[in-house]
Amino acid sequence: MPGPIEFYFDFVSPFGWFGAERIGALARSHGRAVRWQPILLKATVLETMKLPALLDTPLKGPYIARDARRSAGYYGLHFSPEARMSFSPLNAARAVVWANLHAPDRVEPLVLALYRRHWSEAGDLSQPDQVLAVAADQGIDRDALQAGLSEPGIKTLLREQVGDAIARGVFGSPTVIVDGEMFWGADRFDMVAAWIERGGW
Amino acid sequence: MPGPIEFYFDFVSPFGWFGAERIGALARSHGRAVRWQPILLKATVLETMKLPALLDTPLKGPYIARDARRSAGYYGLHFSPEARMSFSPLNAARAVVWANLHAPDRVEPLVLALYRRHWSEAGDLSQPDQVLAVAADQGIDRDALQAGLSEPGIKTLLREQVGDAIARGVFGSPTVIVDGEMFWGADRFDMVAAWIERGGW
Repeated sequence: MPGPIEFYFDFVSPFGWFGAERIGALARSHGRAVRWQPILLKATVLETMKLPALLDTPLKGPYIARDARRSAGYYGLHFSPEARMSFSPLNAARAVVWANLHAPDRVEPLVLALYRRHWSEAGDLSQPDQVLAVAADQGIDRDALQAGLSEPGIKTLLREQVGDAIARGVFGSPTVIVDGEMFWGADRFDMVAAWIERGGW
Repeated sequence: MPGPIEFYFDFVSPFGWFGAERIGALARSHGRAVRWQPILLKATVLETMKLPALLDTPLKGPYIARDARRSAGYYGLHFSPEARMSFSPLNAARAVVWANLHAPDRVEPLVLALYRRHWSEAGDLSQPDQVLAVAADQGIDRDALQAGLSEPGIKTLLREQVGDAIARGVFGSPTVIVDGEMFWGADRFDMVAAWIERGGW
């Protein structure tokens, strides 16, 4: 069986959300699994690339804020006008690291439900209680996850996985790696599909 | 008649090339003209956004270099392995400013021929002689253009037009503005077409 599609995303990135909403269908239609891998743009963009936060970048910041809302409409998604653009995604990211270990069949619905809670429903994913409530709605044991979120092992694992992603060259959200080839951007999925179908070019 | 599609591009940007190869057909199929507007990423990215050059950015630089070649293949274009990634686009940009005034019906073939000379044929657009030779091939009066390239008025006009673009929020290559709405990226043309067809959303 061909290898999985590795899908890197940060919950602070609405473009990660647009990708998350579509990567499952893309993978299934090509007989691939998805490996859901949270990253932290704080570590890639601010610390490794030494760039300012996207929304603080002259010209690009205002464009991206508008483009995110416009893109949601293009993809048929509701972008809440009240959604907070900046927040700590740490608890949500750790929940995915935990679920990859302890509830692997719930990871895709968990990721989608977390993204939607924040961006469609203006929830606040920086709050552990909100992450736990979303996870419980997706059939994940709330108490087990709550314990997991404060486990040093989970925190370390997220940090290591973000480091591994950076070592592979991952910097943006979403990023797809398939058959060793990396693609950045929710707007590159047609190219990803073509790459899989043609075996590259 | 609906307004033109304003197409902003820099010859140093292979993504500007990919956009240039496709914007004419997109515009014609929607009954629009194209206004070809050179910009200078040195002015937008380095001076206004205060960012490092794309190719010098950790992680993103190597990705973009690979993605540019891969995207050319995706769009059915030949990307010369010998093409220089960094060069001064000033003469080529001034030639377009001049042609917009003095040979408006030759602008689209001029832009495409300049892009192809550099990126497909590994010419060197930083050299005025190469720009003049490409222009002459496209039916432009070589002597008149040569005089135009050193006219202070043309240099000033390019500078002013780049300033106007920045004032409108343009920062990347290619950028499309249609019906007042701005789209950045050669990979956004499906969204541009949808925006025109639906009158926004």
